[in-house]
Amino acid sequence: MRNIKLTLSYDGGGYHGFQKQKGTGLPTIQEELEKALSILAQESIAVIGSGRTDAGVHAKGQVANFKSSMRIPAERLPLALNSLLPRDIVVFKAEDVSCDFHARYDAKRKTYCYTIYNDSCLSPFWRRYAYHVPGKLKLEEMSAAARFFLGEHDFHGFCAKDTAVKDFVRTIDECSVKKDDEIIRIIVAGDGFLYNMVRIMVGTILEIGKGKRKPQDVAYLLQKGVREEAGMTLPSCGLCLQKVEYPS
Amino acid sequence: MRNIKLTLSYDGGGYHGFQKQKGTGLPTIQEELEKALSILAQESIAVIGSGRTDAGVHAKGQVANFKSSMRIPAERLPLALNSLLPRDIVVFKAEDVSCDFHARYDAKRKTYCYTIYNDSCLSPFWRRYAYHVPGKLKLEEMSAAARFFLGEHDFHGFCAKDTAVKDFVRTIDECSVKKDDEIIRIIVAGDGFLYNMVRIMVGTILEIGKGKRKPQDVAYLLQKGVREEAGMTLPSCGLCLQKVEYPS
Repeated sequence: MRNIKLTLSYDGGGYHGFQKQKGTGLPTIQEELEKALSILAQESIAVIGSGRTDAGVHAKGQVANFKSSMRIPAERLPLALNSLLPRDIVVFKAEDVSCDFHARYDAKRKTYCYTIYNDSCLSPFWRRYAYHVPGKLKLEEMSAAARFFLGEHDFHGFCAKDTAVKDFVRTIDECSVKKDDEIIRIIVAGDGFLYNMVRIMVGTILEIGKGKRKPQDVAYLLQKGVREEAGMTLPSCGLCLQKVEYPS
Repeated sequence: MRNIKLTLSYDGGGYHGFQKQKGTGLPTIQEELEKALSILAQESIAVIGSGRTDAGVHAKGQVANFKSSMRIPAERLPLALNSLLPRDIVVFKAEDVSCDFHARYDAKRKTYCYTIYNDSCLSPFWRRYAYHVPGKLKLEEMSAAARFFLGEHDFHGFCAKDTAVKDFVRTIDECSVKKDDEIIRIIVAGDGFLYNMVRIMVGTILEIGKGKRKPQDVAYLLQKGVREEAGMTLPSCGLCLQKVEYPS
């Protein structure tokens, strides 16, 4: 039995997230992958993702794995798969890995990018990939706020309330704000993320950019741990899973 | 009577070009603009574009003008218009201009960008905005070919056959090829363009990049003036009207 690791990109705009939603009929990335792989393998394939991405969230470097006795060489798998997948899901790498590799359990670091389009009119080319904020933002305050997230914290206050998770401690090793003309990119990387965590973190950073809060409020919010006190959950279209790293 | 100049962006993917197509029911940019402007002005508005863009072609800086006695200040027009326009058409500038300004007749220079995505797998984020070419391309040959287009030429051989135009002479003052990772951008600027001209020029440059022709073949094709001998018309999704310039 082979264990095959896939690296893929997708425009999440047309999907209800990565994870299969049984019996709902809603399109998901996992379902499309399993459908295409099952055709190629001529057997039923179950795909394990590095984690779920929410409805509408994009990915440039999502990772998944599956087990199969299929005979297609790994280097020919992307082309074969892409011919069966919808054009908004693209597998760009496939490799045979050791049988105990698990895309979710073994992931040691994930990097997300949240994109804000900061100009009076939203460009039609960014409408699917960025959140539009027309007014002036205080970039330095946003950067200062981002730095308060660095390190190990209990992210209870930055997690959607409907979660089954018990352990809210996560370590963030990168949280930065960069502006390039009208595009603001907020990069967040860490060992793991809770439900809606990045979108709430960025929502809070944005309120600080608007002058509604101070950067040091982040320290208070982390300590307090109450969801209602943190910023809003920003829309999913601005969020993109950039990469998932594994121990080499 | 005011004469108002608009600068706009659009994702042309959902439209059958800029120009209204009477009685066809096909969506066009002009029609959407006229519909929105007529609502704001409470009178029937006719829009003049700097030129038609073909079905599927995008624009970052298309220019249009219209005459109206509407009272909305120019600086408030973009926001008002964008609230009525579909999200894939965005007016980002409006200004009062002299009564004899004509978006088509006065245009003195247009700049187009054609984007090629040159990697084995097409990123889902570029599928609407680039033409996918997987194989290796000879960049230096493409640049050399592009330089042969510079200057004044008869572009008969680089024009779709179904055109009513009589004068095929145009002057190209910029034609360059730039690669940035997997993205190749071919910039073409000049005093005017024939039907499908940029897409045929780039189609020819691409065949030279693939080694099927030599850069100096461009000189021959320009001189010969036979459409069938030039390269293929590349798909519209890779083409974008970047800007239109007027005498200041």
